[in-house]
Amino acid sequence: MKFRIGVDLGGTNTVAAAVNERNEVVYKKSVPTKRRFYDICRDIKELAFTCCEVCGIHPAEMEYMGVGSPGIIDPDGGRILRWSVKGISDAPLRDKLFELTGMPVYIENDANAAALGEYEAGAGRGTTEFIAITVGTGIGCGAIINGELYRGMNFAALEPGHMVIDKKGPLCSCGRKGCFEAIASASALMRRAKKACEVRPDTALRNYSVPDGRAVFEAAAKGDLTANQLLDSYLKDLACGLTNIVNLFQPQVLCIGGGISAAGDALLLPLREQVAKEEYSKTLKTRTVIKLAELGNDAGLIGAALLGRGKTWED
Amino acid sequence: MKFRIGVDLGGTNTVAAAVNERNEVVYKKSVPTKRRFYDICRDIKELAFTCCEVCGIHPAEMEYMGVGSPGIIDPDGGRILRWSVKGISDAPLRDKLFELTGMPVYIENDANAAALGEYEAGAGRGTTEFIAITVGTGIGCGAIINGELYRGMNFAALEPGHMVIDKKGPLCSCGRKGCFEAIASASALMRRAKKACEVRPDTALRNYSVPDGRAVFEAAAKGDLTANQLLDSYLKDLACGLTNIVNLFQPQVLCIGGGISAAGDALLLPLREQVAKEEYSKTLKTRTVIKLAELGNDAGLIGAALLGRGKTWED
Repeated sequence: MKFRIGVDLGGTNTVAAAVNERNEVVYKKSVPTKRRFYDICRDIKELAFTCCEVCGIHPAEMEYMGVGSPGIIDPDGGRILRWSVKGISDAPLRDKLFELTGMPVYIENDANAAALGEYEAGAGRGTTEFIAITVGTGIGCGAIINGELYRGMNFAALEPGHMVIDKKGPLCSCGRKGCFEAIASASALMRRAKKACEVRPDTALRNYSVPDGRAVFEAAAKGDLTANQLLDSYLKDLACGLTNIVNLFQPQVLCIGGGISAAGDALLLPLREQVAKEEYSKTLKTRTVIKLAELGNDAGLIGAALLGRGKTWED
Repeated sequence: MKFRIGVDLGGTNTVAAAVNERNEVVYKKSVPTKRRFYDICRDIKELAFTCCEVCGIHPAEMEYMGVGSPGIIDPDGGRILRWSVKGISDAPLRDKLFELTGMPVYIENDANAAALGEYEAGAGRGTTEFIAITVGTGIGCGAIINGELYRGMNFAALEPGHMVIDKKGPLCSCGRKGCFEAIASASALMRRAKKACEVRPDTALRNYSVPDGRAVFEAAAKGDLTANQLLDSYLKDLACGLTNIVNLFQPQVLCIGGGISAAGDALLLPLREQVAKEEYSKTLKTRTVIKLAELGNDAGLIGAALLGRGKTWED
């Protein structure tokens, strides 16, 4: 059995996995993500070497390592062009990791890596036009067009999180007002829930120490009126952004991942219903199918481990 | 010199042109668009035969005819899947025109045909990722991705006109609220101008029998305060939708056509400035260039005349 290493470099944790040829994660290990670029690279090396050890493979014999990273990533040049949160810009991630590990290294934006994982091994199997949205702290997205990841000419495409859906809406971290991410991310849902706790003394949401997405879905399922109203309005906003994406891309499948997808049908069914009402293609026979992501937190690892497939490493 | 026929089937007029190999319109003729599908097809035949006559070519010897049509078009199946305005659905446009003319016929959505024209012979030359927006009665759009027209799996993609940018905004013909087209089309600008004429007795816009886009740009240039305020607010909304498109697609060039593009720099410069402030890629070296369309009303004809290029007709 051959193995590849997939790394999911996140704002909070850095995770590396050994992934087999059936796209299964056979081992993974996580450390908190450091602040400085060089320290991050050293941690990735350590994690990757541990994966090699577990698989019984010498690092020099590992086929390759794939890394999904936040920010705007240039896979051809092997660089993090911009990762605002960590203040990293124009960092030679690929070459530094090659220098440290001796392994062929392929890098990609983390949302793109997750989309590739779902495309090859999850909700996107069998499609050629596929979009994966991750609803979490922000809203991430990757798209497969004609069987290939679409990145735009500067690797910065597919940022529906920074698509304005409410031009008089709340300020977004990107400087615009009313971005999809500022309104419909999991963080935005939590902000709404916190506000509701302040003004509605009778809501069951106040029983949760952190009124996060899970709490809102749970309280709504138990019949809490405030939670239901909150959820209804949130899901309409989420559906609004998804409908925009459908009207622009018309993929065969649009899948929704991130923590919020744990809500299952309570998330999926109202979204499907609302998008079906709003989409421009509503009277057509062939319409985008909205699905939940299938690989959970492993999508990014599995996608990263696919990055070098069929490619030839040129040192 | 070889010629091809390009047809721009519009809601108001049906235009056919003879286009030479240098993508120049050498002759064109227009008739008002009929209501019924069969009458439309007969008119296209008549126009096409006139083009043949002018070029001195027997219809049986014309290389092919390309037709750009409104609505959702299936180029593979040769059908108009849906053209709401005329109440036409599932109409075999290609086969009917072949039956009437004996010419190979290729059909495409009109916004896609116009995008193809600009891509090959206008503002998109030399790119591989290109988007053309037409701002008129509605907002049409076509996109070239990796050198090919992108249509989505059901031929209904690239409808940024039906992308919500203001979820509490005015009702759109598609049933949603606050669509880009309901806010930033040329018709929307005229609606704003009419409203301004009602409430601002001192505006120079009242001197125009129809306060359309041209009137607003003209009055603003002459220093009319109301027209300037109106234009400023309109251009911000137009830039909002364009920025959404840039954040999603990051094409090399985004071109703006339609009647409004006649305003030239008075349109282009403020749009460029606003998008540069808002786009997610604002700190990157490589950014989408916003341009005006170069082919004017001929983009659709020239693009239609390119539809069969390199293709083999199978009867």
